[in-house]
Amino acid sequence: MQLTLYSDYSLRVLIYLGLKGTELATITEIATSYNISRNHLVKVVHNLANQGFIATIRGKGGGMRLARAPQEINIGEVVRMTEMNFTVVECFDPDNCRCPITPVCRLKGVLHDALEQFLGVLDQYTLEEVIGNGPQLVRILKIPEGRKSARGSRARA
Amino acid sequence: MQLTLYSDYSLRVLIYLGLKGTELATITEIATSYNISRNHLVKVVHNLANQGFIATIRGKGGGMRLARAPQEINIGEVVRMTEMNFTVVECFDPDNCRCPITPVCRLKGVLHDALEQFLGVLDQYTLEEVIGNGPQLVRILKIPEGRKSARGSRARA
Repeated sequence: MQLTLYSDYSLRVLIYLGLKGTELATITEIATSYNISRNHLVKVVHNLANQGFIATIRGKGGGMRLARAPQEINIGEVVRMTEMNFTVVECFDPDNCRCPITPVCRLKGVLHDALEQFLGVLDQYTLEEVIGNGPQLVRILKIPEGRKSARGSRARA
Repeated sequence: MQLTLYSDYSLRVLIYLGLKGTELATITEIATSYNISRNHLVKVVHNLANQGFIATIRGKGGGMRLARAPQEINIGEVVRMTEMNFTVVECFDPDNCRCPITPVCRLKGVLHDALEQFLGVLDQYTLEEVIGNGPQLVRILKIPEGRKSARGSRARA
């Protein structure tokens, strides 16, 4: 049972941008910090922007930053958006369900409950809480300190 | 986010055998009832037998049945066994984790909690509860009524 790499990378981008505050970050910079493929991040960033989680500024000196404060970015909301497929078992997808017992299957209900509980935990957290240990994350990710950083004291420590 | 087909099929086999009671079932019969590949079921059955969920009887007239009563088969226990990979994100697998923030990442803890809640729901159910609507399932799966059936009144209805 796994989240997609797409969800994983989306969350990593948001963590990075949360740590940078109002400063702009580039895809290359984020890819380098996490040591992941830049190409993978292009679609991730595009989608996060489309969904209103991040703002992108084009052109030389451009980049991206969060479009909302970290306390307004709910982890459950992000994962519900990025994880396009919650087909825990095939009957969760009516278009591709071939299991004959689906109409009366109680297991389906149990698995639905389980999925809701999973997402319910994520709903309890915001990005602000996830990056609550900003200084440690900033150090590990080697995020450069900018002149106009608005990361707050946590990230500057 | 999906369970493996392997978990899905393991649960289907247990549902089928739960409905058959003490009567033996064959792999071909189960595959036909669910309209799935017989080949996929061979490994599923082998593993369920190895883990003590089902008993197999070899030879002509052989087959399989549950090795425990349905109320003693916990759905969480089954899925923890069949779902060999609970790597919700890569850092759940220390051998393949390349994310640099893993040692201090709070999201990892959140996702661990979420996974435990998911499994915690499954832990609340036994196979007996899942097949509580036996007559409906028996009808849909076209399970033949055997002379020595011990499915109980529910399944005979």
